[in-house]
Amino acid sequence: MIQTTDACNIEKIEDGTVISPKGFKSGGIHCGLRRSKKDFGLLISDHPASVAAVYTQSHFQAPPLKVNQESIAESQKIQAIAINSAIANACTGNEGLTNAYTMRELVANQYSIRKEYVAVASTGVIGEQLEMDKIKYGVENVHPSETGAHDFQQAILTTDTCEKSACYQVEIDGETVTIAGAAKGSGMIHPNMATMLGFITTDAKIESEHLQLALSQSIDKSFNQITVDGETSTNDMVLTLANGSVEHHSLSPDHSQWGDFHQTLQLVCEDLAKQIAKDGEGATKLIEVNVSSAWSDQEARIVAKKVVGSSLVKTAVYGVDANWGRIVGAIGHSEAHVNAEKCDIYIEGQLVFSEGTPCSFSEEQATKDLSKENVTVNIDLHEGTGTGTAWGCDLTYDYIKINASYRT
Amino acid sequence: MIQTTDACNIEKIEDGTVISPKGFKSGGIHCGLRRSKKDFGLLISDHPASVAAVYTQSHFQAPPLKVNQESIAESQKIQAIAINSAIANACTGNEGLTNAYTMRELVANQYSIRKEYVAVASTGVIGEQLEMDKIKYGVENVHPSETGAHDFQQAILTTDTCEKSACYQVEIDGETVTIAGAAKGSGMIHPNMATMLGFITTDAKIESEHLQLALSQSIDKSFNQITVDGETSTNDMVLTLANGSVEHHSLSPDHSQWGDFHQTLQLVCEDLAKQIAKDGEGATKLIEVNVSSAWSDQEARIVAKKVVGSSLVKTAVYGVDANWGRIVGAIGHSEAHVNAEKCDIYIEGQLVFSEGTPCSFSEEQATKDLSKENVTVNIDLHEGTGTGTAWGCDLTYDYIKINASYRT
Repeated sequence: MIQTTDACNIEKIEDGTVISPKGFKSGGIHCGLRRSKKDFGLLISDHPASVAAVYTQSHFQAPPLKVNQESIAESQKIQAIAINSAIANACTGNEGLTNAYTMRELVANQYSIRKEYVAVASTGVIGEQLEMDKIKYGVENVHPSETGAHDFQQAILTTDTCEKSACYQVEIDGETVTIAGAAKGSGMIHPNMATMLGFITTDAKIESEHLQLALSQSIDKSFNQITVDGETSTNDMVLTLANGSVEHHSLSPDHSQWGDFHQTLQLVCEDLAKQIAKDGEGATKLIEVNVSSAWSDQEARIVAKKVVGSSLVKTAVYGVDANWGRIVGAIGHSEAHVNAEKCDIYIEGQLVFSEGTPCSFSEEQATKDLSKENVTVNIDLHEGTGTGTAWGCDLTYDYIKINASYRT
Repeated sequence: MIQTTDACNIEKIEDGTVISPKGFKSGGIHCGLRRSKKDFGLLISDHPASVAAVYTQSHFQAPPLKVNQESIAESQKIQAIAINSAIANACTGNEGLTNAYTMRELVANQYSIRKEYVAVASTGVIGEQLEMDKIKYGVENVHPSETGAHDFQQAILTTDTCEKSACYQVEIDGETVTIAGAAKGSGMIHPNMATMLGFITTDAKIESEHLQLALSQSIDKSFNQITVDGETSTNDMVLTLANGSVEHHSLSPDHSQWGDFHQTLQLVCEDLAKQIAKDGEGATKLIEVNVSSAWSDQEARIVAKKVVGSSLVKTAVYGVDANWGRIVGAIGHSEAHVNAEKCDIYIEGQLVFSEGTPCSFSEEQATKDLSKENVTVNIDLHEGTGTGTAWGCDLTYDYIKINASYRT
């Protein structure tokens, strides 16, 4: 996990938003798809921005994702992102595809930009068609501005209980570069990206191909390392726009500060990912699992994610039960090099399992530790030098309640 | 899924037990590991039996499994199986291994058989040592008999709510061969075997190597196709004993009725597997997912298991919600060839999704169908000729309740 260090001049901006980077505006309104909550958001850059995108790996990719892939392949740039909540426009066949194209066109016309410069996103119930008159109303009335950050951040939510945003700054060539993001996601959160929506903005100057490289690598250690319920959605994606509003030498792996930029982007991704995990459906706690001394970084991430995704670990944490046996079960079940005789497990710093057998530990302390909102489990595999982290949440009665009748 | 047919002379024996095959006895008593329920069982054959075994794939294999692998490698035969519930003897280090050897030896001495003819099994809480005086009491007082089937079947249970047994008969060379089994398992039920305990008995005459072949193939389509919560335990195994009490030509793939025997064994495995899935922790319903027209049988099984293991599908079924979107999500997430535009989904025979979009269907009928104890989902992928089935259960408030404080 990357830590903020003085050395590389990265700073977290506590009250930053998705439009803190220069040259971005946003807005969010109620267009009528939901009963009363905001359901239509628009994010726009003053000029076409370099773009990087990662999409769901579901076989059932929703129409908006198909349209964006086509747009980006053609333009290599994106200037505006329009999103509606309530209806996912997934499993909607040809009509759904037409509607996604129409949504793109409405935005292009309204803001007099090329249609290929518009990305579209939808999130909500699948199998229902968008009501295009409401989308049209949204496009015409959203009015993005420099004060519309929270409206946008609210409009993209579904079962989320709070806005999710992150903002960091880093000096590049002596200039302050800002990277920020907004995200949504609460259920259907699991592997291989895509299981949420993330919109990342930056005023850095960088070509799309290099932005894509940095994004893809960052996602492997952030969004791809969270899990709420092991599900992958049809709709989800992370879009990153870099509009180059700050004057510095264009970033690429050859730039001496490429690492600083990359690290900052990853901090934004990680920050958003953790917020999503913590706001998992019905969750009361964020669980962080750090694996060290694994055979490789990849295996460390596999083990971390297996543990944090285990229903039995999740319910034990919910029950404030220092049940190391559930952790052992999940490690044992993972596809990684594990020697049962060597593995150490710590719950909030307290060693509970060592060299294949449980240790005596303070149950009182463990109960205190597990009662906190953020619970950390450290696992030392004593196999190699690989490290990795994953984040998730506890499994509670409310997860069942929320999902037992989501549709009806 | 194999169906009983007249053609191959297979008959289900409704009141059969694990000792219905000739030459087996069993017993079960309370030896003191649990508060009052039976916690020690013994199954014994009149003479050493051919044996086949499948073990957990967890990295943390419990001592009893190690001891059995050693015994079977040396003897190729097993005559007695001793099992305790309450304590799993897992993550117990060298002391645990010594205790498993001692348990084996106690049984061997009590029944005057070679120690390598004794298999041992433990199930329950992990990380605690067996109390060997209680195990000794169990061995000395269990007294297996021809009427001890239910005592044995009860003694092996943990959080299970009911006994699990199955019994089928088939004619081989004009003689009646019986195959039966007892099983336990309720939580930690998922892929790759081992996630439960199963003891299968038969009076068929068959060498261990052929029995192993038939068992391994049967397990892929039964025990490996159930899931309760995606977890794999440290302890679980299926042991199959064939004592040859019935006189027929020894079974092997060359025997003209090999297929009949194999099919009967698989019916026993499937029957037990379904009982385990239905009795999943907190479950109120058995869910069966049949996938047809997949690219291969293996891919059909992958898709079926993905759907039946989806937390969102499981909660939707609990909520009596015909949420085909959850099924689509799970199919989309599977590592198999899937064309979203071709896939059909039926809930209890009612088509709810076809060619990439939802169908209009009777919600009233769906609610009625989903209120039943057994819910069947059929998925037609229109990709090839592969078929496969998986079984699971709904995810309920009680699963959380049972597991939020299992240890304490």
